[in-house]
Amino acid sequence: MAVYTEISDDELDGLLSQYDIGKALSYKGIAEGVENSNYFLHTDKGFYFLTLYEKRVRTEDLPFFLGLMEHLAANGFVSPRPIPAKDGATLKEVAGRPSAIIEFLDGRSVRRGEALHCSLLGDTLARLHTISGSFELSRTNTLSVENWRPLFDSCRTDNPDQLFPDLFSAVEEELDYLEKHWPSELPSGVIHADLFPDNIFFLNDKVSGVIDYYFACNDFFAYDLAICLNAWCFESDGSFNITKARKLLNGYRSVRPFSDAEMNCLPLLCRGASVRFLLTRLYDWLNQIEGALVKPKDPIEYYKKLQFHQAVTSAAAYGLD
Amino acid sequence: MAVYTEISDDELDGLLSQYDIGKALSYKGIAEGVENSNYFLHTDKGFYFLTLYEKRVRTEDLPFFLGLMEHLAANGFVSPRPIPAKDGATLKEVAGRPSAIIEFLDGRSVRRGEALHCSLLGDTLARLHTISGSFELSRTNTLSVENWRPLFDSCRTDNPDQLFPDLFSAVEEELDYLEKHWPSELPSGVIHADLFPDNIFFLNDKVSGVIDYYFACNDFFAYDLAICLNAWCFESDGSFNITKARKLLNGYRSVRPFSDAEMNCLPLLCRGASVRFLLTRLYDWLNQIEGALVKPKDPIEYYKKLQFHQAVTSAAAYGLD
Repeated sequence: MAVYTEISDDELDGLLSQYDIGKALSYKGIAEGVENSNYFLHTDKGFYFLTLYEKRVRTEDLPFFLGLMEHLAANGFVSPRPIPAKDGATLKEVAGRPSAIIEFLDGRSVRRGEALHCSLLGDTLARLHTISGSFELSRTNTLSVENWRPLFDSCRTDNPDQLFPDLFSAVEEELDYLEKHWPSELPSGVIHADLFPDNIFFLNDKVSGVIDYYFACNDFFAYDLAICLNAWCFESDGSFNITKARKLLNGYRSVRPFSDAEMNCLPLLCRGASVRFLLTRLYDWLNQIEGALVKPKDPIEYYKKLQFHQAVTSAAAYGLD
Repeated sequence: MAVYTEISDDELDGLLSQYDIGKALSYKGIAEGVENSNYFLHTDKGFYFLTLYEKRVRTEDLPFFLGLMEHLAANGFVSPRPIPAKDGATLKEVAGRPSAIIEFLDGRSVRRGEALHCSLLGDTLARLHTISGSFELSRTNTLSVENWRPLFDSCRTDNPDQLFPDLFSAVEEELDYLEKHWPSELPSGVIHADLFPDNIFFLNDKVSGVIDYYFACNDFFAYDLAICLNAWCFESDGSFNITKARKLLNGYRSVRPFSDAEMNCLPLLCRGASVRFLLTRLYDWLNQIEGALVKPKDPIEYYKKLQFHQAVTSAAAYGLD
């Protein structure tokens, strides 16, 4: 939860004067978002979100993120639409931060998805992959296999085993393996790359919104599935729920069938997806910002997921037949 | 900013089934409120706030707070209305916490009130004092003169001067003075007792809402004015803005004239109001909760305000003639 940047009334009025969405009647900071400051905004024309991009988001990436949301929404995908200002731009600035005003979407995220949610998630993820195929911009994944070792190196501490026994040596070994075996060619395009339960809204047993495109990038479609398998198909006790996994994968391939190569790579991609979140969590854990309003998440959760996937020998373990 | 208690979908649905306000379409934690968890709630019938009362609010006080808001709103005052459930009750329970669903009011608080806001504030405060005269419940002020010394005693540390040089001896001396001179009789009734800029909304140069009644209690009306003088009439450099004070007091007496006794006591009440906020801030400063999402406010700001009022010899210093 976070509101990092406060906006004054004058700053808000100045921003809104560039839009055709009326005058601000009220605005409240929202206790959500790790990377950004988010405000809930009521104007005399409706309800919106105002997002201020904080330092962790690179300004040069914003046209990609906002453009992707526009493209998805314009093509019938459940992405909130960035509201264009009078000059047509969706990216503006307020309180010294890049900002965007985003459509308010109804719907509720689930804390722990059931099988039905996993099925809907799969279907939705495949639609995102399909529709983003006609999006013109691209963005390199800055958290992919070649970035993991430098990130890991920046996590080194004098006494690694004191905090997390065996973790550092295990990750080192895994990185050797992943760098050697990571596929170079698989069907790819724009992926969400962070489709955790927080980032998808449901309403009346349908998906009503997919939000938070700030990790979206070009990468293997099946890697997005691997991220979702990790985020949605483990129970809180660490056990893997193969029913949910099957629903997720079958939901996906009902829209976009995947190739044998993708299926065969899935265990490896799941290992990579585990390492990716393990490392960013580890980094955040070791670099906690004093006064930050967000508690870092436990890296060990993803170490356990990694161990599960290391023992997997084929995609059958994920319910695929 | 704070959301201390998370609500599950099932808990929210269970709560809403007791009301006539439709089904939840979305809800978001609001980055506001020190004492409570606050959610912004959208149902198919409208927008609301859902407040969960956390430990710092005494459950037995809730009927007073919610009843006061109902009474004020029913009598044309700009208080948000607590929404009654089907059984007529405004106080319910969700996620193991007492809860209330409150009307959503538009308007924006000002970070630093101008003279116009002070004038409107005075008028509004006097209306609150007048209308609450017909409210049947009462609540003792648990942060009044007799509570300050025990609170101060609980702030004692081994090395008081290390943190705040001279503060502890100055407060001790002031407490001696206040306990000796605090008035026993002045016009009194229900006061807001916490009408800081955060807690009043403006829209089109009118007051559109007064919120956060969780310190409301029975006490001297003029003490509420003293709290507002402190909260609204000092500039950020610590200087006292007598124009704002005059606007506040004249706005007030245009609705409810105050007696000579109230006027004469004002400097003393301002000293008391300074000590009250100095002490709660000092307590919060010394008892910071690890992981709390709210940074404690600086107690020294109120020590400086106290010093200003100690030098005041008559209410003329506040712009009264």
